[in-house]
Amino acid sequence: MGGNAGNGGGVDDGRDAYEHIVGEAARLCELARELQDSTSSLMSRTWNEEQVLRQRALALDSDLRRLQSSLEFVSRSRSFDQKLAEKVEEDMYRAKSVLVDGDVASLLPSKGHGRFLKMFLGPVNLRATRKEVRLKVKEEYNSYRDRTAFLFLLFPSMLIFLRSWLWEGCFPVLPVQLYQAWLLFLYTTLALRENILRVNGSDIRPWWVYHHYCAMLMALVSLTWEIKGQPDCANKQKGVQLFLVWAIMQGIAMLLQNRYQRQRLYTRIALGKAKRMDVVWGETAGVEGQLWLLCPILFILQGFEAYVGLLLLRTAFVGVVSEWQVVVCGALLVLMAVGNFANTVQTLMAKSRFKAMKRSKSKHDFDQLPSPTSS
Amino acid sequence: MGGNAGNGGGVDDGRDAYEHIVGEAARLCELARELQDSTSSLMSRTWNEEQVLRQRALALDSDLRRLQSSLEFVSRSRSFDQKLAEKVEEDMYRAKSVLVDGDVASLLPSKGHGRFLKMFLGPVNLRATRKEVRLKVKEEYNSYRDRTAFLFLLFPSMLIFLRSWLWEGCFPVLPVQLYQAWLLFLYTTLALRENILRVNGSDIRPWWVYHHYCAMLMALVSLTWEIKGQPDCANKQKGVQLFLVWAIMQGIAMLLQNRYQRQRLYTRIALGKAKRMDVVWGETAGVEGQLWLLCPILFILQGFEAYVGLLLLRTAFVGVVSEWQVVVCGALLVLMAVGNFANTVQTLMAKSRFKAMKRSKSKHDFDQLPSPTSS
Repeated sequence: MGGNAGNGGGVDDGRDAYEHIVGEAARLCELARELQDSTSSLMSRTWNEEQVLRQRALALDSDLRRLQSSLEFVSRSRSFDQKLAEKVEEDMYRAKSVLVDGDVASLLPSKGHGRFLKMFLGPVNLRATRKEVRLKVKEEYNSYRDRTAFLFLLFPSMLIFLRSWLWEGCFPVLPVQLYQAWLLFLYTTLALRENILRVNGSDIRPWWVYHHYCAMLMALVSLTWEIKGQPDCANKQKGVQLFLVWAIMQGIAMLLQNRYQRQRLYTRIALGKAKRMDVVWGETAGVEGQLWLLCPILFILQGFEAYVGLLLLRTAFVGVVSEWQVVVCGALLVLMAVGNFANTVQTLMAKSRFKAMKRSKSKHDFDQLPSPTSS
Repeated sequence: MGGNAGNGGGVDDGRDAYEHIVGEAARLCELARELQDSTSSLMSRTWNEEQVLRQRALALDSDLRRLQSSLEFVSRSRSFDQKLAEKVEEDMYRAKSVLVDGDVASLLPSKGHGRFLKMFLGPVNLRATRKEVRLKVKEEYNSYRDRTAFLFLLFPSMLIFLRSWLWEGCFPVLPVQLYQAWLLFLYTTLALRENILRVNGSDIRPWWVYHHYCAMLMALVSLTWEIKGQPDCANKQKGVQLFLVWAIMQGIAMLLQNRYQRQRLYTRIALGKAKRMDVVWGETAGVEGQLWLLCPILFILQGFEAYVGLLLLRTAFVGVVSEWQVVVCGALLVLMAVGNFANTVQTLMAKSRFKAMKRSKSKHDFDQLPSPTSS
């Protein structure tokens, strides 16, 4: 309908504007075509050049492996001059750093995304191309932990405070469930972000990620767990109360850990070179003084975690509360406590070994290099 | 300790291997340095060339906007020759398509990630550079929906079947809660993936994403909702039962919808040109026959959803079950039903308008172009 009377009663300048529009549209269409062509040609050119670099990187990687194994073979029968051995180590370390942390790293196939990320997000690319961005992701993760550590401290403190001040010794259901829902959300996001960090080259210990899977499961289970119990609630809510006290301690430990790791990252950025080793030994290497405050707190926390878990298991088996949720939460807490303890000890041992290596300057076991005098 | 006796009792070929290793390490270190240099120079070169293309794209975009507004201005006072008007529309549409869907699109700043993705993942890049990858993400999303639609149908059917066959008319708590936890997981992943699709240029209607936020909330709330009730469970579990029947219908509708959207995507890929309009009108445009099967089912489903919601609200206010969870779930179901209905109607109207446009060849209201005969 309509629109067919194009030639009727027009004025001249109307006609001009009209022709101008037609011409302009054609010109823009042509410009767009050219833009499309140059973009796709740039992309294919870049892709080809990247392909060459990729090949060189892979060749370098296999050369490094070959050198590593021949080094192991030779060092089994002979010992090296120390200075030269150090030079070899340093050269190899530098070459590896380029492959792992240099610009070329973004062109190499990244570590598998892992089932967790695929499950939640599907097969998307999560690796940042530029190194600054990767460091920014790490920094943002740390500041996220900072913010949540604060809430981690605040929420349970408020619940415990309100219980004695307002609720007369009995937790009402809704606030506790809101807190549990928040925990579920928090642990899910932490697990997601840590997996993304791994994709971006962080060497975070796998346990800390598994630990967050366990915590997610526990938060989910605790949501289905009835906590009401007006008659004799002091007895029935003992588990919840212990859990909250543990959460407060956890919050304090998280704040300390965060401060500690943050300082390490700033040092790294300031140095301008992100050393791979700093990530590998990342959980504990560095800033001395705080570590001796952090470690006892971590161990006490882990002991308390196990204690809460065992207490829950006991209440389930003695029969005060006989729901399956209590058993599962108790078992998960014990599992997490044991895992956390084992991993903290391992990290500390790795750190002290690293320090001993530095002090004695003999660098035993440095990054999988076998001891030169093992024969 | 040790390792200092480097010059003692060596054999000649041992010494050779040793020197070879030192030399090889130095060579590899040098190679790595070169690789780092060429990669970073390629990257900065590419970045500069991309910058030029980006500028050209922005200029084209502002030219298109200017043309659009002068077209609107002129068409207010004059009517166009139909053929030329169509040509202008087509030229502008093509130019816009390049900016939105062409290779250059990946260089332009993407739509904001939105709060949801930032909350869960932090500030990571989720936009795929290559168009094939973007289409793959979409395809994977569809196949994910396929798989889950099957489970969406299976789980509630199984629960309802087992209730009469094994559980003597009463749902036990655990299986229902497992199902609810699965729903929470499912809706979370769907919301995440849809947000990722949006980042990658999909024009999925915002409501469908909000709808999944509501569904997440409902699944979370239903987890905290006690469903046991051995005395008189038939009455108390009526809400759960209705919800499961609705879920079965939802599963069937999802399967149909998926088949329909899949065929559309294949057509798009086969055509080799992903037209923007296909995304905009995406929910319903295309494959005719199935739509007339799909729509009545969708409307019945939405009616049933509202009915279940109202029933839940009634039970809460009449006082059979007086938990807040019932009220929230009821209200959310009604809200989702109304929103779904409004959005389905809007999409259908957009589609019929689009078809009328095509049929009459006058293309009224095509992609925001004002009607040429509106004066």
